[in-house]
Amino acid sequence: MALCVLLLSSGCASLKPDPLPSWNEGSSKQAIVGFVSKVTTPGSPDFVPVPERIATFDNDGTLWAEQPLYSQLFFVLERVKTLAPQHPEWKTKEPFASLLKGDVKGALSGGDKAVAELIGATSTGMSTAEFDALVTQWLATAKHPRFNQPYTAMVYQPMIELMAYLRANGFKTFIVSGGGMAFMRPWTERVYGVPPEQVVGSSGKTQFELRDGKPVIMRLPELGFINDGPGKPVGINEHIGRRPILAFGNSDGDLQMLQWTAAGSGARFMAFVHHTDAAREWAYDRDSSIGRLDKGLDEARAKGWTVVDMKKDWAVVFPFAAK
Amino acid sequence: MALCVLLLSSGCASLKPDPLPSWNEGSSKQAIVGFVSKVTTPGSPDFVPVPERIATFDNDGTLWAEQPLYSQLFFVLERVKTLAPQHPEWKTKEPFASLLKGDVKGALSGGDKAVAELIGATSTGMSTAEFDALVTQWLATAKHPRFNQPYTAMVYQPMIELMAYLRANGFKTFIVSGGGMAFMRPWTERVYGVPPEQVVGSSGKTQFELRDGKPVIMRLPELGFINDGPGKPVGINEHIGRRPILAFGNSDGDLQMLQWTAAGSGARFMAFVHHTDAAREWAYDRDSSIGRLDKGLDEARAKGWTVVDMKKDWAVVFPFAAK
Repeated sequence: MALCVLLLSSGCASLKPDPLPSWNEGSSKQAIVGFVSKVTTPGSPDFVPVPERIATFDNDGTLWAEQPLYSQLFFVLERVKTLAPQHPEWKTKEPFASLLKGDVKGALSGGDKAVAELIGATSTGMSTAEFDALVTQWLATAKHPRFNQPYTAMVYQPMIELMAYLRANGFKTFIVSGGGMAFMRPWTERVYGVPPEQVVGSSGKTQFELRDGKPVIMRLPELGFINDGPGKPVGINEHIGRRPILAFGNSDGDLQMLQWTAAGSGARFMAFVHHTDAAREWAYDRDSSIGRLDKGLDEARAKGWTVVDMKKDWAVVFPFAAK
Repeated sequence: MALCVLLLSSGCASLKPDPLPSWNEGSSKQAIVGFVSKVTTPGSPDFVPVPERIATFDNDGTLWAEQPLYSQLFFVLERVKTLAPQHPEWKTKEPFASLLKGDVKGALSGGDKAVAELIGATSTGMSTAEFDALVTQWLATAKHPRFNQPYTAMVYQPMIELMAYLRANGFKTFIVSGGGMAFMRPWTERVYGVPPEQVVGSSGKTQFELRDGKPVIMRLPELGFINDGPGKPVGINEHIGRRPILAFGNSDGDLQMLQWTAAGSGARFMAFVHHTDAAREWAYDRDSSIGRLDKGLDEARAKGWTVVDMKKDWAVVFPFAAK
């Protein structure tokens, strides 16, 4: 402590361990550290009181991998195979028929409607507790097709460090994802340190019932809220009730969240993860059907938002690759 | 500290200031303190880890007064009067016509539909920021008709102490109210210490828009979610994603929240505030149109839940009365 006081003017901070060791030195890391420093320094014109330090993160493609398919879709596809014997009609009914023939692309060619149908058929008509158990069980055994790792290992080490760094600086970290809220909540606390009550996502309708006298919440096969694109600021307002001062996404589906964050007064930090690393992860942006980053990339460049170059900015991508 | 260790077996705790000074000694206070003690004592068979210490509170009639009308209705009634000159058609259109003649009872005889219409006409068609400002402005000037106090002074001192006591013991306190979420969030942090992201309530539909290039969230005149009765466990699941271990309500609209809380495993605490004090507050239960407590009272007694007797259990009701 005394040493630190003596050395303060000559760079004592460098004696502390780097809170972001998986981030290479460069403009992205500088922008993050500079922002956190100015909003947390008492007396700084940009100081933000602790309760207003709200940070929101997209999940798919921002905190964990989303290629070649969203992890939730891998879960749904396996559920279709498991349930197929009870549904002989699926053999001739799309999107199930293509899927059961192994034609994932064909099955998903029906777009959002096909996805909604698959989710309805595999993830509803059960209680919330039953769905939790299915997700937990699947995550314990399923492996990613390219990396042969559990899906919860396919998370970005630099982003995990970033969220911990923000929390250590008084931020509350939220996930604001287009993915299913109930699909994320069973594991986000363990994997990201983000508790269920700080996970905002898409959701179907649910209903409170007494089943044999015991209260349950049933998942109904009805669409509820789609927390994507212009739905993200709406979801943030509904769940958080105040505007983030920092927001991180990776696709055009996050653009409105970043616009909403940017439109507040005072210091703001907006960033996209740009997938530029085909060797360690994937390289995609404007032409990808999953996680397309096109308008967002233009707006980020025009407005000076941070664009994280995965290949250049990240020393490590996945935790398992760091070993 | 040394003194405390020495005296531990002879009642050292009594040297600490009472965290619930506005609660009279009795079975309600004992039940609360006993529950908090057992779930926070490491090694206790009832120990609950900090992240799972979720406590939910109804607002109207549980944290602040709801008689002779919900405060939000007083706000809406004033808005109707303010807006009436712009709406000549209201002179002959119910529920507005009765209201403008001073017949509040007649106006509300249309039940939920009338209330929804009043809220739609007075609280939508504007941005979330504009609505925030209207609520804040109203609260700064409006006074309760019986006590001539600001509505945010009409809160229950024992409940404020209870929430602070729970937070000091690692609980996260949430409001789970049938009232409008956006009506509560501008002031709950200041008045109750509950931040906006821990306020769950009813809400209308909203929409993200760019207005003159600036992002806004507009409040649409469409019903969204009614967070009351069986809607409360649904709202809890949607916003919190885990089951409370403690829940406090005051009416049949809170019964399902208490049932949902009770149905979890491990130690649980369920309670109703019973309005028994016509002198200091109001006395009402089974026959009240506002805050009716009938089935809930029977179920609480049958199941041994705590029923707080306002007259007997509370040394003080409102903070202004303590002076």
